[in-house]
Amino acid sequence: CMCNHSIYLFSFQISDRDLCPDFDNFDETCLAQEEMCNFAYDLQRQTKIRPLYFSCDLFSHPRYCNGAATNPDAHVFAYACAQLKNALEMAKRLGAENFVFYHPRDGYQSLIQRNIFRDVSHLGQLYRMALQYRDKIGYRGQFLIQPKPYDPRRFQYECDAMSVMAMLRQFGVERHFKLYIKPGYSKMMGRPYEHDVYIASAFNMLGMVDASDNWPEIHTTSDVVPYNVRSATYVMKCVMEQGGLQNGGFTLGFKTRREAIEPRDLFHAYILAMDTYARALKNAARMLTDGCFARSIQQRYITYKSSIGERLDKGNCVFEECEDFIRKAGPIKPTTSSYESFENMFNFYVFPPLPH
Amino acid sequence: CMCNHSIYLFSFQISDRDLCPDFDNFDETCLAQEEMCNFAYDLQRQTKIRPLYFSCDLFSHPRYCNGAATNPDAHVFAYACAQLKNALEMAKRLGAENFVFYHPRDGYQSLIQRNIFRDVSHLGQLYRMALQYRDKIGYRGQFLIQPKPYDPRRFQYECDAMSVMAMLRQFGVERHFKLYIKPGYSKMMGRPYEHDVYIASAFNMLGMVDASDNWPEIHTTSDVVPYNVRSATYVMKCVMEQGGLQNGGFTLGFKTRREAIEPRDLFHAYILAMDTYARALKNAARMLTDGCFARSIQQRYITYKSSIGERLDKGNCVFEECEDFIRKAGPIKPTTSSYESFENMFNFYVFPPLPH
Amino acid sequence: CMCNHSIYLFSFQISDRDLCPDFDNFDETCLAQEEMCNFAYDLQRQTKIRPLYFSCDLFSHPRYCNGAATNPDAHVFAYACAQLKNALEMAKRLGAENFVFYHPRDGYQSLIQRNIFRDVSHLGQLYRMALQYRDKIGYRGQFLIQPKPYDPRRFQYECDAMSVMAMLRQFGVERHFKLYIKPGYSKMMGRPYEHDVYIASAFNMLGMVDASDNWPEIHTTSDVVPYNVRSATYVMKCVMEQGGLQNGGFTLGFKTRREAIEPRDLFHAYILAMDTYARALKNAARMLTDGCFARSIQQRYITYKSSIGERLDKGNCVFEECEDFIRKAGPIKPTTSSYESFENMFNFYVFPPLPH
Amino acid sequence: CMCNHSIYLFSFQISDRDLCPDFDNFDETCLAQEEMCNFAYDLQRQTKIRPLYFSCDLFSHPRYCNGAATNPDAHVFAYACAQLKNALEMAKRLGAENFVFYHPRDGYQSLIQRNIFRDVSHLGQLYRMALQYRDKIGYRGQFLIQPKPYDPRRFQYECDAMSVMAMLRQFGVERHFKLYIKPGYSKMMGRPYEHDVYIASAFNMLGMVDASDNWPEIHTTSDVVPYNVRSATYVMKCVMEQGGLQNGGFTLGFKTRREAIEPRDLFHAYILAMDTYARALKNAARMLTDGCFARSIQQRYITYKSSIGERLDKGNCVFEECEDFIRKAGPIKPTTSSYESFENMFNFYVFPPLPH
Repeated sequence: CMCNHSIYLFSFQISDRDLCPDFDNFDETCLAQEEMCNFAYDLQRQTKIRPLYFSCDLFSHPRYCNGAATNPDAHVFAYACAQLKNALEMAKRLGAENFVFYHPRDGYQSLIQRNIFRDVSHLGQLYRMALQYRDKIGYRGQFLIQPKPYDPRRFQYECDAMSVMAMLRQFGVERHFKLYIKPGYSKMMGRPYEHDVYIASAFNMLGMVDASDNWPEIHTTSDVVPYNVRSATYVMKCVMEQGGLQNGGFTLGFKTRREAIEPRDLFHAYILAMDTYARALKNAARMLTDGCFARSIQQRYITYKSSIGERLDKGNCVFEECEDFIRKAGPIKPTTSSYESFENMFNFYVFPPLPH
Repeated sequence: CMCNHSIYLFSFQISDRDLCPDFDNFDETCLAQEEMCNFAYDLQRQTKIRPLYFSCDLFSHPRYCNGAATNPDAHVFAYACAQLKNALEMAKRLGAENFVFYHPRDGYQSLIQRNIFRDVSHLGQLYRMALQYRDKIGYRGQFLIQPKPYDPRRFQYECDAMSVMAMLRQFGVERHFKLYIKPGYSKMMGRPYEHDVYIASAFNMLGMVDASDNWPEIHTTSDVVPYNVRSATYVMKCVMEQGGLQNGGFTLGFKTRREAIEPRDLFHAYILAMDTYARALKNAARMLTDGCFARSIQQRYITYKSSIGERLDKGNCVFEECEDFIRKAGPIKPTTSSYESFENMFNFYVFPPLPH
Repeated sequence: CMCNHSIYLFSFQISDRDLCPDFDNFDETCLAQEEMCNFAYDLQRQTKIRPLYFSCDLFSHPRYCNGAATNPDAHVFAYACAQLKNALEMAKRLGAENFVFYHPRDGYQSLIQRNIFRDVSHLGQLYRMALQYRDKIGYRGQFLIQPKPYDPRRFQYECDAMSVMAMLRQFGVERHFKLYIKPGYSKMMGRPYEHDVYIASAFNMLGMVDASDNWPEIHTTSDVVPYNVRSATYVMKCVMEQGGLQNGGFTLGFKTRREAIEPRDLFHAYILAMDTYARALKNAARMLTDGCFARSIQQRYITYKSSIGERLDKGNCVFEECEDFIRKAGPIKPTTSSYESFENMFNFYVFPPLPH
Repeated sequence: CMCNHSIYLFSFQISDRDLCPDFDNFDETCLAQEEMCNFAYDLQRQTKIRPLYFSCDLFSHPRYCNGAATNPDAHVFAYACAQLKNALEMAKRLGAENFVFYHPRDGYQSLIQRNIFRDVSHLGQLYRMALQYRDKIGYRGQFLIQPKPYDPRRFQYECDAMSVMAMLRQFGVERHFKLYIKPGYSKMMGRPYEHDVYIASAFNMLGMVDASDNWPEIHTTSDVVPYNVRSATYVMKCVMEQGGLQNGGFTLGFKTRREAIEPRDLFHAYILAMDTYARALKNAARMLTDGCFARSIQQRYITYKSSIGERLDKGNCVFEECEDFIRKAGPIKPTTSSYESFENMFNFYVFPPLPH
């Protein structure tokens, strides 16, 4: 399932602001980035490497300090639309496999300064217009959204997988998007590293993973190198079970610490990141090959395979039928979750016996 | 807007497990709770006080240790349905204004032990069957769901307002439900006290508020008496702006500390809670009467009233139009959020000048 | 008690790096800062305003990326000593009332990369040498240490009031220092805003307070404007009860948000900060004048005034005497903490009744 | 270094309240616990197994709801002394290797209800009297204190290793105590699992470790089975480097989840805990045998071995000497911390290459 992934192992990601600065004058910016885009296009032809994703930076310039599409000032929203239009054109030209939306300034500092419903609706409009324009120009990259709970805002509307899916569904555009999950942000939100990966995957919405990490006790964007093979194994197990990330991939969005001041530190950082996820991949592959987790889960939900369980699962049941069943069945014996046994099984794959 | 609220000022809330214990034998439980329900009915006739809400306890009994509707064992799900059927009948008999769903054991301890999509779908089935049965028996109470992020589970599916709305929308039942928000849980999740109240209200889904609090630094269910008038003022402002809670209300789900061992402690606790929210109500009322926040918000979003802003707001715009506009408009000057000024204004109402 | 405080109401704080940049060449830096120091001295003579405190920036320059006194490289430690020597001379020349130590890079990213005992001992040496040199040059400013839990390091040795006091005591220099508490950092550490203020004051070590705040749910240095009069009232109550801050004072170490882009935002921010603490001062003053909290505390500890309580308090008791007492006294009735009643009393002063 | 540890592998820990309930009548309690103590003594003679530690439960009975030694009521303090006297006698009779102090109700709910200095001083008196009585009866068990940050109190005075050491030093009794660290509590406080183990060990104060864990994202006492070999390896590395825990040991203070309802769940839990720490021991042993971390640390602090570094380390230096050195030495080149390289090295031992 990972085979076509290797193509992008040495791919890159790029945003419009990586191409050139955001000049105050829109035309000037467009010209400069077009020139740089042509330059990138030529380089790509030589290397045969296309971007894993292109993104549109709608947060760095001061004009976006109060958000892009959710900005209370309609003119900033309009600016974001114009910028996004050009970004989509460049993404097409460079053949980016994916197009990433990331809106860390679209949220609130104070709830009494915002009209939440209006803000969220405007975000919906942005997505609808983007889909429309993508179709118009015939760009076929996958649209991805990266959620983040907070920082720099006190709360950001696209705060986690579930909230993004809620909004996409509200706008009626859910089937055109997938999610780009950064598990380090799940930890920021007080959840297990792997949480949003599993949530997105459960709803068939997982499209990309940023394999960086966050220090567990510091609730901000620490973006450290992924080091925890155990946590990464959870992520890899989920990705393999859904059959890979298709056109998506794993990205390395970490930063070394300020005190990593020598070039070799960067090498160590990449080695640490790659080794962590490579080992996680091996662990997960052995879990899937052995099939013990799949069998355990199947066994755990076995009562939904037949009789009243099957009817409940399919939505063909009513309360009266359940009551009849319970009156006849007698007391229900609770089943253990075998949580500790599962953890033992998981550790067996993550920390296999040492050779003598 | 609060006038019809006063009716329930001295109302009560009740669950099926408040009526009688959960005997292992279903018939025995049903008989016992029917008898107690009749007794309650007679008392209600004397006092003319009906319950603010009735709820079905699908978490206390050991059979629910792995969840109710999301239990991997279909027989437990069936049991929950049977229990819920009887609870709806009692709610109807007692004339409960609302019916509360609260599922603190429906979540995961470990993501690899769960089929999330299946679990969530089963929760959807429960809601669909409950709606069906409510219609069948002609019960007209408002259905409410109370979200909670975790504790006792590591994660609970109905973790916040946004996630509950996502699921309701997925099940296609969103218009039959409202949310019962406990702001103390928003703090558990690392958000401002008032967060989920505003989110729910923004989508017209706020139906009830549990006016307890949580110690900010302890991320578990501390359920302390609400003491922070400033935070409560945010909540009251939101409730008043949406025109009150209709058939819902404010509940007091706090607990005194273990060292509150004298009866008068309970009085002090209720006085503290009532005073906190009463003062918050007064503060909010003055804010609304003066109208300064409403005017500020209106002014802040003024650009959406006309021209391209109006078209963007209504969804009648395309990217090309935005680009044309921006090319003509020239650089966009960012606007201050005036955050600190808003806080000053807010404090003016919460801490008015002291008399000399 | 606050009277001599007003002198510094319009005072300022200054670090050696505010005077001039840190040139790589030590002599060059010394020359430049001496020149600037002379310039500042002349300005001070005109305005008659001396600095509330002078501090030595031992963290901004890359050489300190792994700490100053606790740096594993002795040459960096030596550099810090040389820089500190000059800072003390400038503090003397400018007549700074206090001298602040703040070491946010002295801690660890990983425990296995550090010799903690050695690091902490080196910090002790820095303090001993600084005291020695202060005496030598006859500078009489109060030495203050500002603790901070983490950020940018994963853990900083001087993480809170208690840990700084532990280290000072270990080094044997505790009576020459006081603490400069920033309550926002207490919140970062998962404690009430006022925590370290009370801890420091309990041990007669509170010398200065940074009246900024931190958003409660974001565990990093958000440094927002203080807005919460209730929290500030706790702080002011403590400061007034210890008779003011003597040569110390309140500082305003907050930052406006990035979206505060107009000059008037800065005014609003300062108004918010001053109003918050001014109101807190008024609240606390009324609490002290009324004396109800003092009387309550006195009553609560009344049993230590006589008999076995007095002997226990003074350390004149042995276990056998306690056992005899208990055998005679019979069962001990627990006393309520009256927590909720205290909160009511506190709120009475923070949110006094509204005028009709 | 672990050899004499194996003796206690199957040892047990016991508190006075494990022996018998706390009757309201002191004499009755003493009689009952004496009888049970005799019974335990006879069993011990048969099995040759003595307790790893004895402890005195000064928190479960309602009389301690506001604390034991720090209780504002002197009579409760006296009761605690009397109870502790008897506990020390029983510890002696049963030959307990250690005696554990643990005071989770000695702290505050509200800072304005407490006299912190007085409270802490009373705790000091308790320790002094206990030492005195231990000497009198000739009991030779090691005194241990277990710190905990909060829960059930909002803050507990003995909140972490550093604060306990600060207090012991203030009372002048530091050399008679060691610390009993529960790394799960370090996580509750927002620190790495291994933090307090390293802090205590740095000051030669680590005497015992409770090998349970806490879910990282839930800031309360979740007491889960230790599962994270990586975190446990840090702990084991520290314990081995200090030459073992002498008379102390590792304890297993975890709980299975509520849904672990079958006896085999308990087996799985103990297997998980033992395997986690056994593997951690093997990892740490290989780290120590190879010596690469020791060499790296030595290299990192090498500049303190000679010249000005040696003089700074020994405290024989003054600022003038440092300034001279720096003026001659020229710019100091910062050194990388090699953080990422250390993590790679650490992972090499925790996740060794898989066999083919």
